[in-house]
Amino acid sequence: MIHSFLLIGQSNMAGRGFIEEAIPVDNSNIKILRNGRWVKMFRPINPDRKMSGVSLAESFAEKYAEKHGVDVGLICCADGGTHIEQWQKGSILYDNALSQIKLAARTSTIAGILWHQGEGDCSEELCYAYEKRFLQFLDDFRSDSGTENIPFIIGGLGDFLPDCSLSDSLKNYTIINDTFKNICKKKHLVAFVDATGLTANPDLLHFNAKSLYEFGLRYFEAYEKIADGIMLEEKENSDSERTKMEEL
Amino acid sequence: MIHSFLLIGQSNMAGRGFIEEAIPVDNSNIKILRNGRWVKMFRPINPDRKMSGVSLAESFAEKYAEKHGVDVGLICCADGGTHIEQWQKGSILYDNALSQIKLAARTSTIAGILWHQGEGDCSEELCYAYEKRFLQFLDDFRSDSGTENIPFIIGGLGDFLPDCSLSDSLKNYTIINDTFKNICKKKHLVAFVDATGLTANPDLLHFNAKSLYEFGLRYFEAYEKIADGIMLEEKENSDSERTKMEEL
Repeated sequence: MIHSFLLIGQSNMAGRGFIEEAIPVDNSNIKILRNGRWVKMFRPINPDRKMSGVSLAESFAEKYAEKHGVDVGLICCADGGTHIEQWQKGSILYDNALSQIKLAARTSTIAGILWHQGEGDCSEELCYAYEKRFLQFLDDFRSDSGTENIPFIIGGLGDFLPDCSLSDSLKNYTIINDTFKNICKKKHLVAFVDATGLTANPDLLHFNAKSLYEFGLRYFEAYEKIADGIMLEEKENSDSERTKMEEL
Repeated sequence: MIHSFLLIGQSNMAGRGFIEEAIPVDNSNIKILRNGRWVKMFRPINPDRKMSGVSLAESFAEKYAEKHGVDVGLICCADGGTHIEQWQKGSILYDNALSQIKLAARTSTIAGILWHQGEGDCSEELCYAYEKRFLQFLDDFRSDSGTENIPFIIGGLGDFLPDCSLSDSLKNYTIINDTFKNICKKKHLVAFVDATGLTANPDLLHFNAKSLYEFGLRYFEAYEKIADGIMLEEKENSDSERTKMEEL
């Protein structure tokens, strides 16, 4: 059985780590979706742009496969430079991700969604509208893909962003991160992964290969914590049902 | 405006030409579909496997863009090692290609479908069933994608195949090629592109980069011949309507 994960968001989810700096990952149990079918993982896993490289999902998948003794499938639909507005229901990115997760679900068990995005929404104009737009996307996508009861893991924006020369607005990354933390309090099975201390490529925009490896481990830790919660809930529900049955 | 082409079939459509042997192609007007969106072409355009490389669609697109003065979009959905049975209506490959051509149609004009497949159906058991299966696929896919009036270009199998050590059955490649020629006689706007004289990688299975460049030019020539036919038909229809109008 393959346990699969949808990867969505912008460039730091697609992965821009330099392949020559990649920390080796055992890919013998990692697969990627190509044309709806599973093939053995090769880099770059999310070839949205010429500069695509190492992804945080690689170490995530390695650890998941190791711990759970299953094959891990990665459904790579992240797209560089995108804003949350471009991920709303009915958009091209939304419909593409939806079609791919549905194809993957024919031959795997969807086990989670990994999200990293927000750099594109750091401007004063956009960052305060982010929560509403993100929640709309989250609710719509979970409902349309039938993943309401599956963990949705959100990575934080890197604390190197204020030093990036691309845009002054990136200093607002903390507003986006605070938004994510707030969303986790409101929403079931949504977890935040802290990016504090992770480092970047010379562009000071994209996580480097070494940090993406570390970030993948943090995503895995956050996922396991939430997934333990699911199993606990299932146990509690079944305990409570048993008690009810015994009471009859 | 982008004129777009769907690429489907198996490895020789995905492209296995060695990138270091690639003939340079001007990609300034060539785009590839990624996550439903158009990005500037980069290699490999159809990353279905680790060994993906140069594709015949590159020189095809270069010539088309040059002649028609438009941007060309490539929707790359070919998948290595596949049989015609795996392309039937409702299959994963079929549904993936259908979802991608529909996404592409939101932001481009679908101008053609390029097919190369058949090596996987050369066995005695499969080759005589190929025509029926191919026609079923063709009719279903054209109907479901609304491409009944758009050229469908089929490339022939390479005449180096009998020397390939992978399988004895590849000597039956001529039966598949004859089937294609037969189909062209029966079906509207379907053309066959001869692969005679083209050469292979050392595996004697995959066209090499130089031959893929040449093959793309032959596909373009076949496309133009058919597309001229469409314009002629339109002219004839409009001439005949004018005559009718004048007769009233």
